Amino acid sequence: MRTDAQDDLPGTTPSELVGKIVISVDAMGGDHGPAAVVAGCAMSAKKNPEIGFILHGNREILEPLVTKRHLKNCCVIRDAPDVVTMETKPSVVMRRGKGTSMWSAIDSVRHHEATVAVSCGNTGALMALSMVRLRKLPGVNRPAIACLWPSRSDSGYAVMLDVGADIRADESDLLQYALMGSSYARNGLKIARPRVGLLNVGTEEHKGRPELKAAHSLIANAAPDSKFEFIGFVEGGDIPRGQADVIVTDGFTGNVALKTAEGTASLIREFLGEAFRHTFLSRIAALLALTSLRRLSKRTDPRRVNGGVFLGLNGTVVKSHGSADATGVSAAIKLAFQLAQAGFSDRLAARVASTSASRQDMS
Amino acid sequence: MRTDAQDDLPGTTPSELVGKIVISVDAMGGDHGPAAVVAGCAMSAKKNPEIGFILHGNREILEPLVTKRHLKNCCVIRDAPDVVTMETKPSVVMRRGKGTSMWSAIDSVRHHEATVAVSCGNTGALMALSMVRLRKLPGVNRPAIACLWPSRSDSGYAVMLDVGADIRADESDLLQYALMGSSYARNGLKIARPRVGLLNVGTEEHKGRPELKAAHSLIANAAPDSKFEFIGFVEGGDIPRGQADVIVTDGFTGNVALKTAEGTASLIREFLGEAFRHTFLSRIAALLALTSLRRLSKRTDPRRVNGGVFLGLNGTVVKSHGSADATGVSAAIKLAFQLAQAGFSDRLAARVASTSASRQDMS
Repeated sequence: MRTDAQDDLPGTTPSELVGKIVISVDAMGGDHGPAAVVAGCAMSAKKNPEIGFILHGNREILEPLVTKRHLKNCCVIRDAPDVVTMETKPSVVMRRGKGTSMWSAIDSVRHHEATVAVSCGNTGALMALSMVRLRKLPGVNRPAIACLWPSRSDSGYAVMLDVGADIRADESDLLQYALMGSSYARNGLKIARPRVGLLNVGTEEHKGRPELKAAHSLIANAAPDSKFEFIGFVEGGDIPRGQADVIVTDGFTGNVALKTAEGTASLIREFLGEAFRHTFLSRIAALLALTSLRRLSKRTDPRRVNGGVFLGLNGTVVKSHGSADATGVSAAIKLAFQLAQAGFSDRLAARVASTSASRQDMS
Repeated sequence: MRTDAQDDLPGTTPSELVGKIVISVDAMGGDHGPAAVVAGCAMSAKKNPEIGFILHGNREILEPLVTKRHLKNCCVIRDAPDVVTMETKPSVVMRRGKGTSMWSAIDSVRHHEATVAVSCGNTGALMALSMVRLRKLPGVNRPAIACLWPSRSDSGYAVMLDVGADIRADESDLLQYALMGSSYARNGLKIARPRVGLLNVGTEEHKGRPELKAAHSLIANAAPDSKFEFIGFVEGGDIPRGQADVIVTDGFTGNVALKTAEGTASLIREFLGEAFRHTFLSRIAALLALTSLRRLSKRTDPRRVNGGVFLGLNGTVVKSHGSADATGVSAAIKLAFQLAQAGFSDRLAARVASTSASRQDMS
């Protein structure tokens, strides 16, 4: 049973959120539970007094956490008794998920109380619910998940999409990924004219699958009117190299690449740790090198680049890692805030609409 | 013009190679030129007196290098005046490549003078030439390139294939990759019963593309009679995790994953360097940590895992990195030697033949 009425009347803004940029937060479902999520909200609120929160979850659990973290002035709670676990199947959530915090968090975007929702829950369920509750943007065939990738570019990141919303993508989908990804780079990374690359096994134009060659010419044609620069095919090694701000690929390849990179980074971190623990002398060196190692760790820490963003829906959903702690949750909220502040959801919708209109004009 | 006759009569073994395990080496075409290749041969010869070399390339350049490196007793030279450069198109090499060191190196395998050839040259040209000169093994539809991936497994490596021979692979190709990859793991890594995983975007059986589901059941059925254990679907993050000795995937995904991992590793190495150069104190720490950092570098040094192996041909070809220095070349030769010593080419052929025969029986 929802008990919204306890908090605020439908259609009016609760006093805690007046003048704020509101983020809808699914407070349950992460590996570390609601305490970590609320702590993450508090970290963000401290840095940024403009943020307001709608927290969705079990009121009895959330209320003491909100009090403890001094969030009462910028936060309302929506009671949602049920939780989507990591094991819950997407189909079950779609049929019977109405009482869950995830459903409630997405519905705040559906009802225009917030333009961006954040959840640490199960990706499959979150994508499925977002699809049915928010629906696809007109002109979008396949929504995508975009992630930020540490890179040598000036912004320090590259946007990569799709990293797992769908295992297929044809040439029109890849074109839409280019449009959505560059809109994300403009609004999330403040890059006025993002450089877009299309992921392939080589940079020569004759290489790769047929849909990639078709997408190459579609994206090249769309670039001049769409405020991005198309740099053509890029390879896996180019993702962190910094010459592209947006990397476009299908969700199968993108998902494998993302997880492979995470696995590689974690293997190297482990090797580094072992190297320093190896002898007495190396332990001393490690102590002296502590700040250097911290600096490295800060640059490669996945918690600081936390948040896959669902693009192509009526509203924006930020998926935080299930294992996110307060720092990780705070990073995801920061991203959601930046996007909400920039009016990203509306800008993206306008961008996709104008391009699909101009493509219809051409045909 | 070939001048074999100066070295030895066709069909007889030159005295330098009697009793040796012979590796055919393309001495030209790498970025560092023949001096690095011959130096790599010398490093391997020093560690391993059983190795004999047939060196292919410009005799006038090679002879002084062979003398300087004291290789005269274990090496014959085949004069091949032309070189395949990194820019040469595969189609051109196939039509007009007869006088090149790469063609000559492959032909030594074709003529059974060696069972394994090594080249630092252009991958596309090497694969194309290997295909036409060695031809596919009976029962193999698409040959594959396998690479070794640093991992937490006992052997320290996982075999991954295909990493770029072909951008497509259907379920039967993926089954053959499982057979060829596990044969490689048995002979190259000495793993009696390799654990084979099929790369996908999730580990649940209902996930992924249709050909992956079909391949899942083909590989599961073949496992009991083919001396490998099938562990089912694995994800990108599992590649270095160590629970699989062989990772099977199509050449598009494999190539992107490999290059993404290399790019990630190189980004982290760069960040590590920057972290240590950052302040005076961190430079001191770096000096003290030198041996630890060397230990790390040794474990992640791509030169020590040098050699993509072409599988599914009548004979084996090891592709060394174009940028390999003497250490890198020596690693590729060591791999070639281990495979030749194990009688890998014949074992692989027998394994593929027996499985394709038993599949015909079943149908």
